[in-house]
Amino acid sequence: GPYDVRVRMKAVGICGSDVHYLKEMRIAHFVVKEPMVIGHECAGIIEEVGDGVKHLAVGDRVALEPGISCWRCRHCKGGRYNLCDDMKFFATPPYHGSLADQIVHPGDLCFKLPDNVSLEEGAMCEPLSVGVHACRRADVGAEKSVLIMGAGPIGLVTMLSARAFGAPRIVIADVDDHRLSVAKSLGADAVVKVSGNAEDLAGEIERIQAAMGGDIDVSLDCAGFSKTMSTALEATRPGGRVCLVGMGHNEMTVPLTSAAIREVDVVGIFRYKDTWPLCLEFL
Amino acid sequence: GPYDVRVRMKAVGICGSDVHYLKEMRIAHFVVKEPMVIGHECAGIIEEVGDGVKHLAVGDRVALEPGISCWRCRHCKGGRYNLCDDMKFFATPPYHGSLADQIVHPGDLCFKLPDNVSLEEGAMCEPLSVGVHACRRADVGAEKSVLIMGAGPIGLVTMLSARAFGAPRIVIADVDDHRLSVAKSLGADAVVKVSGNAEDLAGEIERIQAAMGGDIDVSLDCAGFSKTMSTALEATRPGGRVCLVGMGHNEMTVPLTSAAIREVDVVGIFRYKDTWPLCLEFL
Amino acid sequence: GPYDVRVRMKAVGICGSDVHYLKEMRIAHFVVKEPMVIGHECAGIIEEVGDGVKHLAVGDRVALEPGISCWRCRHCKGGRYNLCDDMKFFATPPYHGSLADQIVHPGDLCFKLPDNVSLEEGAMCEPLSVGVHACRRADVGAEKSVLIMGAGPIGLVTMLSARAFGAPRIVIADVDDHRLSVAKSLGADAVVKVSGNAEDLAGEIERIQAAMGGDIDVSLDCAGFSKTMSTALEATRPGGRVCLVGMGHNEMTVPLTSAAIREVDVVGIFRYKDTWPLCLEFL
Amino acid sequence: GPYDVRVRMKAVGICGSDVHYLKEMRIAHFVVKEPMVIGHECAGIIEEVGDGVKHLAVGDRVALEPGISCWRCRHCKGGRYNLCDDMKFFATPPYHGSLADQIVHPGDLCFKLPDNVSLEEGAMCEPLSVGVHACRRADVGAEKSVLIMGAGPIGLVTMLSARAFGAPRIVIADVDDHRLSVAKSLGADAVVKVSGNAEDLAGEIERIQAAMGGDIDVSLDCAGFSKTMSTALEATRPGGRVCLVGMGHNEMTVPLTSAAIREVDVVGIFRYKDTWPLCLEFL
Repeated sequence: GPYDVRVRMKAVGICGSDVHYLKEMRIAHFVVKEPMVIGHECAGIIEEVGDGVKHLAVGDRVALEPGISCWRCRHCKGGRYNLCDDMKFFATPPYHGSLADQIVHPGDLCFKLPDNVSLEEGAMCEPLSVGVHACRRADVGAEKSVLIMGAGPIGLVTMLSARAFGAPRIVIADVDDHRLSVAKSLGADAVVKVSGNAEDLAGEIERIQAAMGGDIDVSLDCAGFSKTMSTALEATRPGGRVCLVGMGHNEMTVPLTSAAIREVDVVGIFRYKDTWPLCLEFL
Repeated sequence: GPYDVRVRMKAVGICGSDVHYLKEMRIAHFVVKEPMVIGHECAGIIEEVGDGVKHLAVGDRVALEPGISCWRCRHCKGGRYNLCDDMKFFATPPYHGSLADQIVHPGDLCFKLPDNVSLEEGAMCEPLSVGVHACRRADVGAEKSVLIMGAGPIGLVTMLSARAFGAPRIVIADVDDHRLSVAKSLGADAVVKVSGNAEDLAGEIERIQAAMGGDIDVSLDCAGFSKTMSTALEATRPGGRVCLVGMGHNEMTVPLTSAAIREVDVVGIFRYKDTWPLCLEFL
Repeated sequence: GPYDVRVRMKAVGICGSDVHYLKEMRIAHFVVKEPMVIGHECAGIIEEVGDGVKHLAVGDRVALEPGISCWRCRHCKGGRYNLCDDMKFFATPPYHGSLADQIVHPGDLCFKLPDNVSLEEGAMCEPLSVGVHACRRADVGAEKSVLIMGAGPIGLVTMLSARAFGAPRIVIADVDDHRLSVAKSLGADAVVKVSGNAEDLAGEIERIQAAMGGDIDVSLDCAGFSKTMSTALEATRPGGRVCLVGMGHNEMTVPLTSAAIREVDVVGIFRYKDTWPLCLEFL
Repeated sequence: GPYDVRVRMKAVGICGSDVHYLKEMRIAHFVVKEPMVIGHECAGIIEEVGDGVKHLAVGDRVALEPGISCWRCRHCKGGRYNLCDDMKFFATPPYHGSLADQIVHPGDLCFKLPDNVSLEEGAMCEPLSVGVHACRRADVGAEKSVLIMGAGPIGLVTMLSARAFGAPRIVIADVDDHRLSVAKSLGADAVVKVSGNAEDLAGEIERIQAAMGGDIDVSLDCAGFSKTMSTALEATRPGGRVCLVGMGHNEMTVPLTSAAIREVDVVGIFRYKDTWPLCLEFL
């Protein structure tokens, strides 16, 4: 849609990718060639709305979905606009981010915050959207016991999303005791301390399965290492599903044949799509 | 079901796995500990039927589905009996194969051959079932352009299955000229010669995509090497699907992160389920 | 599987269908021609187990799934064994029910009760299974707001199941104030009093949609009248789904064209499949 | 997208709905209040293209998809843009049709015709799209035997689509001998003459099932009468699917309970989405 809303920015989170661009001036094949504003986790207050915008008014507090898709390619038309061939995304070169005083944005990507949600919480819709999209892709629900590898920020929002999607039992694994204690306090049913050492794989899988106390239907790897992905693939029951959420090295060395012959499906995510309304409901 | 049919075996194919058991006395964790009859691709003539068998009569020519599942586990009850926890499968230790004079088998796993299908062709339902199950898992259909990596026996039955499932365009790649010429004569729309050399990957993907002349929606890796799987993952369009059919090393080194962030799903197969009626229709 | 368990019956519910057989000696084309024991909602204590039964022991308290399917037909093999061509079901002629002192039954249809679940509650797995299967067929989940037509016993178990499947908002409608107050006390987000009068349809749909306060994604008609089904079809959003759970007259007069051009899908249920483990988890 | 292409119209079909608007000045709740140009099956030649249009050039022969959706509502974002809350569709009040000398249209809704497809054939993408969308919704494929009720224009395009989707066996039924002979000449495997008389239902279903010679997996009702829909519902196998394509009276009197307890799913269609590329491939 058209850029028909002007928003005064009030809360902008700084994400790892923003820092990465600042330090390295690139992520994968996205290279910063000219000065670029960072920021894509954001919320603000509407200052002006176009004629066609019916659902918003001046003064509304809104969270912003940061990607503007083309609505012409097969992905946009097929309902997977996150895969758009021509996406304009905040703080992804050559497009500026939202760490600015004011932003002009399409009204349909601005979502009015309920009274009980602060602007800072509204900006958190963005990382939460990653967890929500991962849970949709992994088909999490009331009949799925879930393993999460990695208790960092993405692991935690994924855990919160899995709970909101009805997962009856969630086990989370990490190398760090503090992260695990945070995960436990946020509602994990069980936590498992693992190492970064590949030799420990078999024993760790046994401990994870014991902690679950039943089949692991879905695993979400929020760390993105060959070892965490190997754990996810091997721990999941035949006919289950693994979602790769974390991004590490492009190449991974993993027991893919073993997963294939147990018909464990492997899916991944690219950002998110159409998650803001659901995130606001969850919040 | 009960073992309620006696079949005089007439045609038994010898598959690579049969030879592997003969030579190595094991495949993965299946170890031959006592003398074992091989053979699982088979057809024969009914000599005796039990009282409860209504669809078969003495003298009927039948193809045999080789796996007898438990019908008690979650996989059997959920419609994925190929993943059965307690499968009894021809020529998989400790169960004997079908290279025998007579076999007693459940009647519901014996499928009457149409008049125009020979016993030898009937035995070929088994390898064809691999291709059929792969196409089902990969969601091949009239809207899916298909890449097949590997033009060996499994690559060819997978290609024939993909055609029967309505794939409008099929490209097949292999290292061997003769195999490619066979694939072409059996109906491949285009064939691409590739090497076993990992350095050639990027150029080969370009040539494969050019041969397709449009998006590759589904890739089926019937070779099972890290290189063929890498080709399949990278060549497939965002939002597409890759099915790992061939079995090589358990561990693979592949660009899984790259596939994940383009939301290319990865699935595998374990044997097949409920494919004999469809195979006989295709034959 | 074989009949390898003997159970001493301790709790047997009497369902409407049992009473119907007693009074009318038939339901649809199922006709009682010889004396028949009724009862199919049941639980008991194991008295004897066969050699092949590993998960049960004498003295275990168990709930019984009442239908024994053939495991040979396309439905059994395809994972929809409730549609089995040759089902043997408690208290469906010519098969006896379970209102007996002892029952011999397949062990895989006997489910051990957790310590916190009584035998009477165990027998309730049967009606609860109807609600669970309906929610599966209707694709209820954390992103689906649900309307339930009818607050009788089946409406209530369906409501409890929808909640367990994560439905964020449930509205239930009925003609009876007392039933609605029970529904409210069991957790309905809103209740709507409706009439049996077809003229009130348009106004009632408006009131139901207002009570939901947003799109109705899924409707479950647990009453089975032309009027309740018409309400469900018209109230559900474009692209939503309606599940017919209640059984009234075979023929219905409903706005099916109107539903079709809004792509509202209509599904139904026949009993249930593979629901006991989930019911016990919910209990 | 923007209106960035100007097309000189060369071929415009006149459909039943166009005639209906001419005669009755309304269809359902769409009322013609001011003079309105009709026509929505059309093709033409590009006369001018906007800067952002890369895939088209002046002089290109194109078919036009007639509906312009909002790309802001939940349906557009979810991949079901045919259900758009704010669709602008040719010859649907208050929007003019395409029976005009020139049309300005979004470039992404103009599809270049291959050399072997005439402008008149290009205009036929519109009715063919109805058949394609119906087959997608009905999940037609290589494993589905198909019954089509009604051999009028929509029945025939649906039959051609079902064949293109790989349906192995298609039976078509109609009241008219001439229509059936056309259907036979276009590739129906069998045709069945039926009457408009409801008393003949049971016998006709038997004859239709005999003509199929096996299970009917999918039925498409392209006539839209209570009797044709009843036939479709009753003739389809348990676990199958019926798609209502034809539009007759809004209310239907049909055996919906009988379909529900055999888990025959009922779906409908509203126009089509993203079908032009596939139609051109089929042509």
